[in-house]
Amino acid sequence: MGQNLILNAADHGFTVVAFNRTVSKVDDFLAKEAKGKSIIGAHSIQDLCEKLKSPRRIMLLVKAGPAVDDFIAALLPFLSPGDIIIDGGNSHFPDSNRRTKYLAEKKIRFVGAGVSGGEEGARYGPSLMPGGNEEAWPYIKDIFQSIAAKSDGEACCEWVGDEGAGHFVKMVHNGIEYGDMQLICEAYDIMKRGLGMTNSDIGDVFTGWNTGVLDSFLIEITRDIMKYNDPADGTPLVEKILDAAGQKGTGKWTAINALDLGMPVTLIGESVFARCLSSIKQERIRASELLDGPDVKPEVTDQQAFIDDLEQALYASKIISYAQGFMLIREAAKEYGWKLNNPAIALMWRGGCIIRSVFLADITKAYRANPQLENLLFDNFFRTAIHNAQPGWRRAVSKAIEWGIPTPCFSTALSFYDGYRTKRLPANLLQAQRDYFGT
Amino acid sequence: MGQNLILNAADHGFTVVAFNRTVSKVDDFLAKEAKGKSIIGAHSIQDLCEKLKSPRRIMLLVKAGPAVDDFIAALLPFLSPGDIIIDGGNSHFPDSNRRTKYLAEKKIRFVGAGVSGGEEGARYGPSLMPGGNEEAWPYIKDIFQSIAAKSDGEACCEWVGDEGAGHFVKMVHNGIEYGDMQLICEAYDIMKRGLGMTNSDIGDVFTGWNTGVLDSFLIEITRDIMKYNDPADGTPLVEKILDAAGQKGTGKWTAINALDLGMPVTLIGESVFARCLSSIKQERIRASELLDGPDVKPEVTDQQAFIDDLEQALYASKIISYAQGFMLIREAAKEYGWKLNNPAIALMWRGGCIIRSVFLADITKAYRANPQLENLLFDNFFRTAIHNAQPGWRRAVSKAIEWGIPTPCFSTALSFYDGYRTKRLPANLLQAQRDYFGT
Repeated sequence: MGQNLILNAADHGFTVVAFNRTVSKVDDFLAKEAKGKSIIGAHSIQDLCEKLKSPRRIMLLVKAGPAVDDFIAALLPFLSPGDIIIDGGNSHFPDSNRRTKYLAEKKIRFVGAGVSGGEEGARYGPSLMPGGNEEAWPYIKDIFQSIAAKSDGEACCEWVGDEGAGHFVKMVHNGIEYGDMQLICEAYDIMKRGLGMTNSDIGDVFTGWNTGVLDSFLIEITRDIMKYNDPADGTPLVEKILDAAGQKGTGKWTAINALDLGMPVTLIGESVFARCLSSIKQERIRASELLDGPDVKPEVTDQQAFIDDLEQALYASKIISYAQGFMLIREAAKEYGWKLNNPAIALMWRGGCIIRSVFLADITKAYRANPQLENLLFDNFFRTAIHNAQPGWRRAVSKAIEWGIPTPCFSTALSFYDGYRTKRLPANLLQAQRDYFGT
Repeated sequence: MGQNLILNAADHGFTVVAFNRTVSKVDDFLAKEAKGKSIIGAHSIQDLCEKLKSPRRIMLLVKAGPAVDDFIAALLPFLSPGDIIIDGGNSHFPDSNRRTKYLAEKKIRFVGAGVSGGEEGARYGPSLMPGGNEEAWPYIKDIFQSIAAKSDGEACCEWVGDEGAGHFVKMVHNGIEYGDMQLICEAYDIMKRGLGMTNSDIGDVFTGWNTGVLDSFLIEITRDIMKYNDPADGTPLVEKILDAAGQKGTGKWTAINALDLGMPVTLIGESVFARCLSSIKQERIRASELLDGPDVKPEVTDQQAFIDDLEQALYASKIISYAQGFMLIREAAKEYGWKLNNPAIALMWRGGCIIRSVFLADITKAYRANPQLENLLFDNFFRTAIHNAQPGWRRAVSKAIEWGIPTPCFSTALSFYDGYRTKRLPANLLQAQRDYFGT
């Protein structure tokens, strides 16, 4: 990741000093990939700091956690007031809050920057989400916007906000990524087990969806995955992969943050729980032998019509998920006293990152038209979209329930929609119960 | 709460020393409620400790958090090795873990005891869930089991396990309580808005349900609430209560713990989020003016049959919720190295507390028949129950979806059931996606 970002910056005309604690890696890199480019090697932290011009701009790409603090401690003796430290790792935002304050006291400007897009993105254009000490922004803006992905000519990078806001927005991005992936899995499961379709036919459906409202990186790679056969026997490779998904924590962080801030970000919550359920595979195998499903053979009279319903279910659920994500971001800004730029956030996710999609251009448009938009669902485009999607969405979920195929994220999105648009929810009864027993 | 527990203990033949930092409250209590009973007043912490026989058994009922630590610090100078401090508040279990260890070093035995049942329970029989330093148990067992609620002649109190296990089990109890309440709200909402029933008619349904598998304290009070009219105008009082539910944190703690331990406790999660959604009432009002529901007028051909389906939906969802709760407890025991007693836990919840029900007698039976039961759903009674409930459960949720009435907890329970009994979930695709972009 670090090497690729350096190469990316060098390609855009910047001179970069490369450092790694394993000095031989620096030499290898200079002799190979970096050869002939505006890249200089450093053999120690002191060497690194001496070779950088003032104000120094140092970007760390180390494992989130204590390693970041250790590196900062090692850098400090060699820095001068006004220097800039950028943490490009997947740090938890409270750590970035703390580091911004701690380093400001030492007159060092800290930036916590979310970076998304994997190795490929780092090399040719990642999504960058910088936040922290805003004094740093004028000194890094040009580099960041040059190396970032572009969407319709605009850089997928803007200043996000104060303290850990950059890492917060990256965290929500990852949570949304969990949701998007789970939604696609639910559609695949319904086509596979419900409609009995082959992987190749499912791949054709994703090919079609990728030319419509769902056009996105994740749909595109799903199409490729469906079409990819194991060279050994010519059968779909995806069917040989274990159906047990672990999680690295950022989806969980988003769900916990939603609970802490009291925001109903149900879709990300369910997508994290869906991974948890997938991971207890052995218990599920035993359960599958004991617990029966419905006595119904899945069938539809018009398969194409049902697939269209499924597309609408996926689209509507995705609208809900992003609306919930922005609700969380709005609440965080209020809670932590950050000024955040909603249209810029959508733009940053528009390209370069895992959730990049045409859909995010529509969100950018919505927030540009009204930066104070209270909820994404109040925007005319999305309001109309969800109204149009509604009948198919309801039909698809009902069919899955009838067939006994789990749709935790389609279902929670629908329950959220129906709850959110309800003036009078049954929580009055809940309050009456609490009054009754006095808690 | 403290006064009621003291009166309860005195009624059972124990001599109790009462203390409160506001000394006048002690004198008032002795002059009134405690008059003529085996209750002695103390005017200072020193006085309290001098009046107690060895080993001292001191139960704190103070606000969870720093107040507990402050009180412990104030007690320590007057205690002797072997004395017992019991925290009967709603402490978060990690605090009880810490206090057990800290006090063991000082040769003081700490007990973190979950207490449920409100004022009424405290006075005439609460559910008590003690955990911590097991050396304390022989000295408090007789008192605790005497004052606890009884269910079929057995005390709703047993030793739960090590360290914070008592408060952990109380936390899960509260999470389950969140879920039970939300499930009842969903049934009420469907009858009210879907079937257009009057509160009195809905009350009759709850009266009926309270004689069947749902027989429980919460169904009983819901019946009373439905039937209670405002004396001022003779209309149902519950309809005048604001539909915005706050949350005191224990439901949230359970959901966060589930995420931390990677256990899919989806029903409690959704019930916490349902409260969050209810609380943004003003935004919902605006949403209700902009976002349309389905173009369907709710109707059923056979109302009683549909109400029977609803009963099954509530019952099946409740089975899922308790199965999930016990999954979390099992995982916690593994994670924190606690030995826990599942049949005792179900028994403790059987009486005295908010979630008390006939249902918990069946759970006690299941765990007594097989203390190593891997999952509540594997027990023959519950397996048969959920199989029988399944068709009505699916019909009820489908109708709610068709009508546009939110059922976050009925729906998530169903998705969990369908996922849990699935040998092969679509998480293979999710893993393939992750491989593709390398995270």
